[in-house]
Amino acid sequence: MPADRGQASGRPTISEVAAEAGVGRATAARTLGGYGYVSPELRERVLAAAEKLGYRTNALARSMSTGVSHTLGVIVADIGNPFFAGLMRGISDTSRARGFDTLVLSTYEDLDQEVAATNVLIDKRVDGVIIASAATTGKHVAHIRAAMDRGIPVVLVDRAVAALDLDAVVTDNRDAAREAVETLIAAGHRRIGFVWGPSTSRTPATRRELLADAARGLWTDGERLRGYLDALDDAHIPFDPELVMVGPKTEARATAEVARMTSMSDRITAVFCTETDAVTGALRALRAAGLSCPRDVALIGFDDSAWAAVMEPPLTMIEQPVHQLGAKAAQVLLDTLEGADPPREMHILRSRLIVRSSVAPPVLGDS
Amino acid sequence: MPADRGQASGRPTISEVAAEAGVGRATAARTLGGYGYVSPELRERVLAAAEKLGYRTNALARSMSTGVSHTLGVIVADIGNPFFAGLMRGISDTSRARGFDTLVLSTYEDLDQEVAATNVLIDKRVDGVIIASAATTGKHVAHIRAAMDRGIPVVLVDRAVAALDLDAVVTDNRDAAREAVETLIAAGHRRIGFVWGPSTSRTPATRRELLADAARGLWTDGERLRGYLDALDDAHIPFDPELVMVGPKTEARATAEVARMTSMSDRITAVFCTETDAVTGALRALRAAGLSCPRDVALIGFDDSAWAAVMEPPLTMIEQPVHQLGAKAAQVLLDTLEGADPPREMHILRSRLIVRSSVAPPVLGDS
Repeated sequence: MPADRGQASGRPTISEVAAEAGVGRATAARTLGGYGYVSPELRERVLAAAEKLGYRTNALARSMSTGVSHTLGVIVADIGNPFFAGLMRGISDTSRARGFDTLVLSTYEDLDQEVAATNVLIDKRVDGVIIASAATTGKHVAHIRAAMDRGIPVVLVDRAVAALDLDAVVTDNRDAAREAVETLIAAGHRRIGFVWGPSTSRTPATRRELLADAARGLWTDGERLRGYLDALDDAHIPFDPELVMVGPKTEARATAEVARMTSMSDRITAVFCTETDAVTGALRALRAAGLSCPRDVALIGFDDSAWAAVMEPPLTMIEQPVHQLGAKAAQVLLDTLEGADPPREMHILRSRLIVRSSVAPPVLGDS
Repeated sequence: MPADRGQASGRPTISEVAAEAGVGRATAARTLGGYGYVSPELRERVLAAAEKLGYRTNALARSMSTGVSHTLGVIVADIGNPFFAGLMRGISDTSRARGFDTLVLSTYEDLDQEVAATNVLIDKRVDGVIIASAATTGKHVAHIRAAMDRGIPVVLVDRAVAALDLDAVVTDNRDAAREAVETLIAAGHRRIGFVWGPSTSRTPATRRELLADAARGLWTDGERLRGYLDALDDAHIPFDPELVMVGPKTEARATAEVARMTSMSDRITAVFCTETDAVTGALRALRAAGLSCPRDVALIGFDDSAWAAVMEPPLTMIEQPVHQLGAKAAQVLLDTLEGADPPREMHILRSRLIVRSSVAPPVLGDS
């Protein structure tokens, strides 16, 4: 076909564009094909070389006409939790400022859904993934490794996973929990309920069993439990397994457990809640029992919200830096995509205790 | 290349697979290529025909090995609003039961972000789109038409857009608002604040101006305002523009506006709040003014939540069927994808007023 051959001399190949741009052929192919990630700087060089040599393809024309931007994939445990909604906003704001759109999938704490979500993001050719994984052990991370094996960078957010050597961006769950429980102890409390704890069916008989159960659960849950124990230890308050909720992590279970802990002969005078639903569950139990907060039972919980400020009494709550958490995770991922290669790091952002009016000295004391 | 030609006779073409399956070539190509949507029934026929004829391609092998499922794209206005989080759960549960994963993008009520999000979903070849659009007029819907022009079915959720002849799944915003305001009127209130209203800078001088402003805003906002006016009309209570908040729809603005309405000489004795942030903003204003709910000011608002039930007093709230709203939107979209072609419809789901303790008769009366 001489006509084609004749034109061919005027049509540079991808390899020629790559050579002109001083980049690898794969980089030129990705840029000109409009798929995969290419750093802005290299992309510009390839496009300049393509223009100089007069390179044009349908794919390039298509890519230019749709104006498709780069995309990050985000997998969160539960988009219905305001914590993750705030986190997403942080990821979205930072990504958008750097020219990336974000696709979100929510797994509702189900590992099968997490695996499916990861496969979707691989299939949709996202440039990188940020994940708050429900994985608790190395047995559950094959899907994350699969993404990494395909060259998709992954950053963990909110939850570290020990089995994975990855950047993780988290908050200081243990320190924040310790500070909250120390605040209750400083007000005079010694019988302090922990809601919620490990989602096992048995009540741990010992501190050792409790920690073993926690180690099989989410990293954040374990860290908050350790912070609670840290504060008890520092104040020489003996650990009482009866004061730790176990079982399904639901508002209804929190209500039932706080009802149990407030009707013990040696009842709790304070409760530390590790989730929003644990807070509302605890408040339902107090209301049903005719107990008032903070007079009868003091309360501190995760996470602060607009509601907590308008409660009667206004609630003392832990405020995690949710927006910054998302922003930092996006920043770490985007830096990696743009060629940064620092050592893997665990980034720990500080939380803040917002003191309001849900803590008072105990009326009942057990010692 | 005789070897290839020799093998070719044993390698059926896509057209042969299509003929064997009794489907069009495009359907066979989509199925075997692992892209685009094919109904489960046709997909099964094509795969059976391919297996019978011994058809194999790299694409097929790849599609089978990654186990990629079909995907729906969802664009919501603000994933940080618990309403949309619950909606997403409904979409996700229904889609998943029918073999589809869902990708979410949040636009934070910004039309530019909505356009970008739509382009991302087109680029990522989702099979269909569910959108809670920030578009208010026909001038803002080119991106939705672009998706439709590419053969991607679109279903509107939460917000109807008059300019688009599309299926829409919404709640009965106007009736729900009317019932709430009627409840306040039945308790004896005549000075009822409306928070929040149109996001214009001017205070509308007349009812007509107010409705014109509302018509330039979101459909849901306008419907709730009409429900408020319906209830006033039925009770022959004259409309007072001073009792409608205008301006930016933020919690801080709601606080300032309720503070203004409670310090008027002819002050409000009740407030109707159309959003969660309007509720918390109103409660902040009451607390700051030393006013008690419901004794000094009664309150009803959108949307019910776990927090509303544990407030002091527990709040009377409108509960929208958020999960069913999402489930229905997914069902309509999936039915379309699977070949259903009923007339376009506006599906209106009913809300429910959850009566608790934030409404009492007014202490002050203006008539």
